[in-house]
Amino acid sequence: MAKRFTIILAAGKGTRMKSQYSKVLHQVCGQAMVEHVLTQVQALQPNKIITVIAPQSQQVRDLLGDRTQYVEQAEQLGTAHAVLQTEAALSSQTGTTLIMSGDTPLFTAATLEKLLAYHESQHAQATILTAHAPNPFGYGRIIRNAAGQVVKIVEQKDASAQEQAVQEINTGVYCFDNQKLFHYLHQVQNNNAQNEYYLPDVIGLMQQQHDQVSAYQMDNFEESLGVNDRSALAQATKIMQKRINQQHLQNGVTLIDPENTMIDVNVEIGADTVIEPGVALKAGTKIGQNCYISQGSRLVGAVLEDNVQVTSSTIEQSIMRAGSDIGPNSHLRPQADIGPAVHIGNFCEVKKATIGARTKIGHLSYVGDATVGSDVNIGCGVVFVNYDGQKKWHTDIGDQAFVGSNANIIAPVKISDHSFIAAGSTVTADVPQHAMAIGRARQTNKNDYWSKLPLADDPHWR
Amino acid sequence: MAKRFTIILAAGKGTRMKSQYSKVLHQVCGQAMVEHVLTQVQALQPNKIITVIAPQSQQVRDLLGDRTQYVEQAEQLGTAHAVLQTEAALSSQTGTTLIMSGDTPLFTAATLEKLLAYHESQHAQATILTAHAPNPFGYGRIIRNAAGQVVKIVEQKDASAQEQAVQEINTGVYCFDNQKLFHYLHQVQNNNAQNEYYLPDVIGLMQQQHDQVSAYQMDNFEESLGVNDRSALAQATKIMQKRINQQHLQNGVTLIDPENTMIDVNVEIGADTVIEPGVALKAGTKIGQNCYISQGSRLVGAVLEDNVQVTSSTIEQSIMRAGSDIGPNSHLRPQADIGPAVHIGNFCEVKKATIGARTKIGHLSYVGDATVGSDVNIGCGVVFVNYDGQKKWHTDIGDQAFVGSNANIIAPVKISDHSFIAAGSTVTADVPQHAMAIGRARQTNKNDYWSKLPLADDPHWR
Amino acid sequence: MAKRFTIILAAGKGTRMKSQYSKVLHQVCGQAMVEHVLTQVQALQPNKIITVIAPQSQQVRDLLGDRTQYVEQAEQLGTAHAVLQTEAALSSQTGTTLIMSGDTPLFTAATLEKLLAYHESQHAQATILTAHAPNPFGYGRIIRNAAGQVVKIVEQKDASAQEQAVQEINTGVYCFDNQKLFHYLHQVQNNNAQNEYYLPDVIGLMQQQHDQVSAYQMDNFEESLGVNDRSALAQATKIMQKRINQQHLQNGVTLIDPENTMIDVNVEIGADTVIEPGVALKAGTKIGQNCYISQGSRLVGAVLEDNVQVTSSTIEQSIMRAGSDIGPNSHLRPQADIGPAVHIGNFCEVKKATIGARTKIGHLSYVGDATVGSDVNIGCGVVFVNYDGQKKWHTDIGDQAFVGSNANIIAPVKISDHSFIAAGSTVTADVPQHAMAIGRARQTNKNDYWSKLPLADDPHWR
Repeated sequence: MAKRFTIILAAGKGTRMKSQYSKVLHQVCGQAMVEHVLTQVQALQPNKIITVIAPQSQQVRDLLGDRTQYVEQAEQLGTAHAVLQTEAALSSQTGTTLIMSGDTPLFTAATLEKLLAYHESQHAQATILTAHAPNPFGYGRIIRNAAGQVVKIVEQKDASAQEQAVQEINTGVYCFDNQKLFHYLHQVQNNNAQNEYYLPDVIGLMQQQHDQVSAYQMDNFEESLGVNDRSALAQATKIMQKRINQQHLQNGVTLIDPENTMIDVNVEIGADTVIEPGVALKAGTKIGQNCYISQGSRLVGAVLEDNVQVTSSTIEQSIMRAGSDIGPNSHLRPQADIGPAVHIGNFCEVKKATIGARTKIGHLSYVGDATVGSDVNIGCGVVFVNYDGQKKWHTDIGDQAFVGSNANIIAPVKISDHSFIAAGSTVTADVPQHAMAIGRARQTNKNDYWSKLPLADDPHWR
Repeated sequence: MAKRFTIILAAGKGTRMKSQYSKVLHQVCGQAMVEHVLTQVQALQPNKIITVIAPQSQQVRDLLGDRTQYVEQAEQLGTAHAVLQTEAALSSQTGTTLIMSGDTPLFTAATLEKLLAYHESQHAQATILTAHAPNPFGYGRIIRNAAGQVVKIVEQKDASAQEQAVQEINTGVYCFDNQKLFHYLHQVQNNNAQNEYYLPDVIGLMQQQHDQVSAYQMDNFEESLGVNDRSALAQATKIMQKRINQQHLQNGVTLIDPENTMIDVNVEIGADTVIEPGVALKAGTKIGQNCYISQGSRLVGAVLEDNVQVTSSTIEQSIMRAGSDIGPNSHLRPQADIGPAVHIGNFCEVKKATIGARTKIGHLSYVGDATVGSDVNIGCGVVFVNYDGQKKWHTDIGDQAFVGSNANIIAPVKISDHSFIAAGSTVTADVPQHAMAIGRARQTNKNDYWSKLPLADDPHWR
Repeated sequence: MAKRFTIILAAGKGTRMKSQYSKVLHQVCGQAMVEHVLTQVQALQPNKIITVIAPQSQQVRDLLGDRTQYVEQAEQLGTAHAVLQTEAALSSQTGTTLIMSGDTPLFTAATLEKLLAYHESQHAQATILTAHAPNPFGYGRIIRNAAGQVVKIVEQKDASAQEQAVQEINTGVYCFDNQKLFHYLHQVQNNNAQNEYYLPDVIGLMQQQHDQVSAYQMDNFEESLGVNDRSALAQATKIMQKRINQQHLQNGVTLIDPENTMIDVNVEIGADTVIEPGVALKAGTKIGQNCYISQGSRLVGAVLEDNVQVTSSTIEQSIMRAGSDIGPNSHLRPQADIGPAVHIGNFCEVKKATIGARTKIGHLSYVGDATVGSDVNIGCGVVFVNYDGQKKWHTDIGDQAFVGSNANIIAPVKISDHSFIAAGSTVTADVPQHAMAIGRARQTNKNDYWSKLPLADDPHWR
């Protein structure tokens, strides 16, 4: 097979985004647009991928790493100029070069593969990826002759009434014979309103020289959306979200309202899991079968085994094992490992802690930097005091321990199996097995003290 | 009036659902599809309702109880075979038999009644319920002759180009003369690709025998949606939700975004109540007039009187009386009875407790297994310690009591009217009227102790 | 320039709203419909604005204040009768009178200005604002002659088949020569089914007298929506929301799902800020650049500087300074001033308190009526005990103080710079610099006490 190369144009500033960030870094369903493009391009396994970036685009390099080579375009002089920056890296090669923009996040590898295959089968020097636009206004139109051959691309402003009626439009994605591409790039002129060098002019030059220019019309116009402003970004997100959610529906997941469920790319969900609207599943989340995730839940890199219930809670980089439940309004911070059948109720925070099977943490508690055994009961308002102002310390709690409400567990400390902490105690020392730790003042009733209290003067209290 | 019988086919597995549950158990707006069907059918008051279920469909029986009879279809041999399982129960009867599927949750009793009335008025042996499909692809087409009589049903794959253009489609709902039905069911063959016995074949057999086959076209195609996969389930939910929400709008309820408000069947809402988007009102919830329910609230079997405000809170099987408010981020667990004009603030949990009028529970408190009087002030971080590891115990708090912050109230205990609990106290004994209970250690300041603390070494603290 | 007057008809009850409130008070995107109308009308800077209200419409007066004059319509006798109530205030004037309804919240000042300019340029005695309706059913149709002149307005029920096909409809907004208006108003009869005096009859009377009646067709039919029921209220909200959100998108704000983001009028958002779906930004909120507001957040009159992160939290009338963050599930009540780079974690409430730079309030704490310095650490479960049953008291905490977990800070109290509160302490007295305050009971371990506890009998604990 002939060699294939890919160029991703990612140097554009995107002034209509009104952003301090490079346009291609804006996200669609939790992933930067340029990463969507790169991921699809990588699936084609081309011999080289070169991304053209603006100088000082460290964020793009940081994001994509060594999945692509980079060349910098020092000045923004147009798309032809951008492609020309790859000359040193590519011009000695023989094969096909696919060129696309980093702001078109919806193209699929399947479409690109069809384009490449068509290009190669036609032995064309260039192939334009085209689409049928329901409303073609504003796009470059593909003008074909009676035999169906591409005659030219006409921009909106130059189109005759008849040409304006054409609905086949240029998506801005091209395949080129690599040698021809660089040959013609040097001939592109910038005598236009913007004084820029435009890549589509290569097509015109090729046609003047009777090189064969072909066009492949893709099935789904929607895929070709280019993002130039925040409205288009929202539109691309909507289309991508629909695509993602459709896949989950096919896998047997119930999305009660798929149009209102925010699921990033790279999320896995098992069959018979139900996701309510108003849930956000961020990248890296893996959910087992038969789970229930209610509205207002936010899962970021969470792992849920089967039969887990999450009610209006936030889970970050943590695992909930089979049959456990949480919420409403609880929070797992990174490195929480919630054991099987554990119950975590409302207003609880767990961080960097392993919780054993069937343990209950019902209400208003903070469990941080801890190993908690199985069948433990953590009362209401318990605080694992893990920070002394300088370091974080660890707490160990054995199996079947009972920690009374509003207890402070001051780490480092070890509370043994079958031990009991009385409610309201501050625990500073280890508690042996079968002991009860208590540390609280005894209650005194000061009778008839009411009249001495400030509130006694207030009519509300009479 | 002639007798009417109804058969609901609910034995299908629904492989495209990819579910471990029976297809008809999947929910639409908080109610299983088969229960939607049964509810509409019951409104027709037929003489018998028989539901055909798969063996071991205990969940369907548990759900529907004695609202229907059941017959089991031991093997999945097709819809005609399913109907045949009702022979013992029905074949001796004279009258009309309505047959519909348990996976068509949107049909209304009104439509079914029109079908039955038409069938009876036509004295037909069978009447097909049809609909006008905007896009009929995939459906069986109703072919009529010039006189408008039904000639046949043609499946998609067998339809000529002309027949494919027909937009009147078979909804899969039928009325039959009961005697004729069972007569022909025995003649249905399974010589088809799936080797199944198909109910529509009865229609063909009747036409061969010149029995009168009629068709009634329903008004609203949308109602006929059958659910075979999770996409269709979401689509049915969307249609049903629109129907439910439209009714609430007509009743004078403000839904700020009706397309994004999840209201189950069997929810009541009074006029001038405002429901923000992102709210879930689950079955059994009753809301009075002039309430305000903000985004992120979740009401499950909740009862709200008039003028109640719920801000981003969760309420389960509890009542909030007139003029009370809660939230954001509080939680009523079952059997909370919140008195008139009570204020419950943020991060509070109330469970199995009665709260008297005008009492305030402002922040971070847990009130469980308690009777709290009126005009009480529950401070911040108060815990009703109701569990000793074995049993739950009850707390009584009188009127106009003041419970200081971070107090632990260890049940069983009685705190009288006009008594005062000092902040930070653990209360283990009853508090008499006009007494102040205090149980905390006195503060000591260890001067110049800072340098001895671990944090003294940390540059952050200098 | 000729004088301009405006009459807003706001006396209608709106029975189809089924509301105890005046129809025009119902809100669209956080603002009463009549205030939307008034705001657009004020932008025209007319010489007078008169709002016709029902008797006892104190709520309308309270809302609009002195932005308009008021006249009362004692009885609901129709729109012509309503306008006639302004006679004393207006009939002596010469100029143009714009009449519109308080239940049409979507008209823009730009459209109204075009109408007025057209009216004035035509020297017409009356000009009807019309629109092209995709589906004109139910509207009054504008019948023009071959020369394009308005011949009459025909109501739906009186329209011939040909007239019914006309898609230019009456929006119910008119300009009149003021003198002519009052001249004809007295001639309007109420011999119709409702026995009401209808304003459009003035148009008919003028045409009978060969006064010049003109019509101006507005560009956007959507603007003309009148709200008569809650469905239309929801529809108006959807259109207004789209208009608001489109403006934010243009300003460089990322709305991940603009169709599901509730942003009131009069909200400002800086570029590169990202707003997730399921957020509510209420009137008066101002958000800086590069902030991130996650789902479930609710901002009411909040001010956020740049680079602020809000995760699923509620903020009311408070400020968060640059680089601070909050959430998930925390709550700023009015008058919280959160300093730069402050971290507020989960389940925290701050009220009427100033928090210094870089201070951390991580979990389950209540900070009320306080001044907290910079670089302070507030532990978990800390309560600022600000209420003695009668008054609220203030707490002062210095810089680089460390407040241990579950401490109660009983105001009024002053905790100095570089002081340390031990976890579990109740602080009632001032703490000097470099001191450690401690007030808690010492822990005792009662060995082998387990068997005496109630839970010892329970198999769960064995």
